[in-house]
Amino acid sequence: MPRAAVVGAGMSPFGHHDAPLEELFADAALPAMDDAGVSADEVDAFYFGNALAGQTENDTHLAPTLATHLGLQGIPCQRFEDACATSSNAFKHAVQAVESGIHDVALVGGVERCTPETGLDTDAMTRIFASASHRRYEQPTGLTFPGVFALLTKRHMHEYGTTEEELAAVAVKNHQHGQYNPNAHFGQDATVEDVLESPVVADPFHLMDCCPFSDGASAVVVVADDLAESFRGDPVAVTGVGHRTDAVPLADKTAITATQSARDAASDAYAQAGIEAADVDFAEVHDCFTGAEVMAIEALDLVEDGAGRHAAAEGTTYVDGELPVNPSGGLKAKGHPIGATGTAQIVELTEQLRGAAGKRQVEDASTGVAHNLGGDAATTVVTVMEARA
Amino acid sequence: MPRAAVVGAGMSPFGHHDAPLEELFADAALPAMDDAGVSADEVDAFYFGNALAGQTENDTHLAPTLATHLGLQGIPCQRFEDACATSSNAFKHAVQAVESGIHDVALVGGVERCTPETGLDTDAMTRIFASASHRRYEQPTGLTFPGVFALLTKRHMHEYGTTEEELAAVAVKNHQHGQYNPNAHFGQDATVEDVLESPVVADPFHLMDCCPFSDGASAVVVVADDLAESFRGDPVAVTGVGHRTDAVPLADKTAITATQSARDAASDAYAQAGIEAADVDFAEVHDCFTGAEVMAIEALDLVEDGAGRHAAAEGTTYVDGELPVNPSGGLKAKGHPIGATGTAQIVELTEQLRGAAGKRQVEDASTGVAHNLGGDAATTVVTVMEARA
Repeated sequence: MPRAAVVGAGMSPFGHHDAPLEELFADAALPAMDDAGVSADEVDAFYFGNALAGQTENDTHLAPTLATHLGLQGIPCQRFEDACATSSNAFKHAVQAVESGIHDVALVGGVERCTPETGLDTDAMTRIFASASHRRYEQPTGLTFPGVFALLTKRHMHEYGTTEEELAAVAVKNHQHGQYNPNAHFGQDATVEDVLESPVVADPFHLMDCCPFSDGASAVVVVADDLAESFRGDPVAVTGVGHRTDAVPLADKTAITATQSARDAASDAYAQAGIEAADVDFAEVHDCFTGAEVMAIEALDLVEDGAGRHAAAEGTTYVDGELPVNPSGGLKAKGHPIGATGTAQIVELTEQLRGAAGKRQVEDASTGVAHNLGGDAATTVVTVMEARA
Repeated sequence: MPRAAVVGAGMSPFGHHDAPLEELFADAALPAMDDAGVSADEVDAFYFGNALAGQTENDTHLAPTLATHLGLQGIPCQRFEDACATSSNAFKHAVQAVESGIHDVALVGGVERCTPETGLDTDAMTRIFASASHRRYEQPTGLTFPGVFALLTKRHMHEYGTTEEELAAVAVKNHQHGQYNPNAHFGQDATVEDVLESPVVADPFHLMDCCPFSDGASAVVVVADDLAESFRGDPVAVTGVGHRTDAVPLADKTAITATQSARDAASDAYAQAGIEAADVDFAEVHDCFTGAEVMAIEALDLVEDGAGRHAAAEGTTYVDGELPVNPSGGLKAKGHPIGATGTAQIVELTEQLRGAAGKRQVEDASTGVAHNLGGDAATTVVTVMEARA
């Protein structure tokens, strides 16, 4: 049963941006509102995600500033920060609000600048990103996020025999998909050899196993389901949103390759939607590193545990394969502006389920899943969206 | 009609703390859960507020870390940041979640460290606090928060004739109240002369017109109203939560002394509760500076516009006066650990409405209001709580 509908979607190109955050966000929000046919005075609330601007630009309390820039002052505005799962948590709250009748029309979105326009170099940004791990037990050891996911992936390799070549195949696939996405940070014909010959960042990850630092913004308009047909934008149903949180630090988890919060969030989302994993036509998953995509599709029960290693290498998860994963290019190629990533996945689900994804369109897409993960595989939000009958 | 109930409340002393954030927060959360008689496995969700730890301690994505420390891993956790109104926004979302049946039992709270334990001096902290103003139009001018509220207050003086002595009377009252609060950062017998002789920070504010930088934590357990009687803690009803956002920067506001978002949030909260301002027995308001309390009681319609200046000076807002304001000591004396302030106001309302506030008890308190403001008088959350019949 639909819990809400998305009637408008927009995003900026992901990559490098010089524009201030409010202008960058407007490049996503205004197209989303225009797509929906919603004017500023019809928006009842603003659910906003940004992860790092306090640290990168000394800019907090951004929701009112951005709302004012869009002509939305007066309505309730709230900022969420849940590491890389920031704006999907904002989306969850907007869905709950329209479902329960608190608001009719909500603008949801996120923005982030992570590239050197902020004056910070890669070392500084890596330290800032690491703020999402455990401050006392992990940061002092020098554990940064490539290291976090390298630990999970090394264990996956140990348990299931996953190889570096199979990981590289994920990057190759997502870079190919990125070529079809005009908003992607990267798109290129890459080979497994290109990935394996790129410098090692954190064993087993080479540079091309890692998503980039990106700037960007994304936004969607979420409305109560019974209002879905009254807007200009072709509505897409939100049928499930699961959200769970696993233990932090990593050492407190019982099985690190399970990414347990993703399993629990997926169970919740599938149950809300009344579907099973087998009903999923395609997925946008949190491939911050290639190994993360392998574990994500297992956690979402799209493949059996241990079988995720084969999916990209055998072609299953290509846009024209049996189970397309990250047709957008994923974080790997589309880019990863932290606070904008969650709603960017919702933008992709919306475009795919409208049949409007152009060269990267998944054939006969009627049920899509988004998987957005934050921190030490700690916060995970899984969303199910479906084309309306 | 009750929207939810608070069945447990706890806070750390406000002041200086060396403990890491998860331990400091546990000093509020565990007493709140114990007060409610709720065990970790009965808590369904965690709504958390922190404003500045990314900037002060390179510590973000805190909700999962704190939840793990409390034995709450697995449940949905979310962090809010809305400047000084951070944890009252978390509280709003928890109230909505239990009211709409999404969760039965929610832990809500906030924590912040703002004192030099973080290794930052007053200049650095002032710059970090200023991140909640407009990044491009206000921060570069050197406008910090004492300046923001000085501008508002100067205008109030111009419009209504408010004097420095009348502002000082607010500080004197709140310092006196702070003496009765064992968790207050400050409590002292101060005189109007003491305030006026303290150094000028931003004209018309002297040092003693300003709230301190504080460390601290606060937490409450919020449950669905129909479950209120099933917990150990004496329940207090939440009958209204209004939340509005005004324009940022200041220059975009039409009348800066109105603090319009507070007026709109109060109207919403009173309407939800089915009360009028005249029904309010006492209020906890956001007195980050003395002038802010004057404008807050006008915005809440507790006094007429322009009459706020007389309230403390004439004794009306003392705990034994006709309309007690900030019986806790307020931000001025109790302290202001940013992300913990919103739920600390809810803690005070809970204790007062239970008749358990000791020396600072408001006589016959049956309806209380909390007013929590963030940034350039931008985000405001107004909460109405009532003793259960």
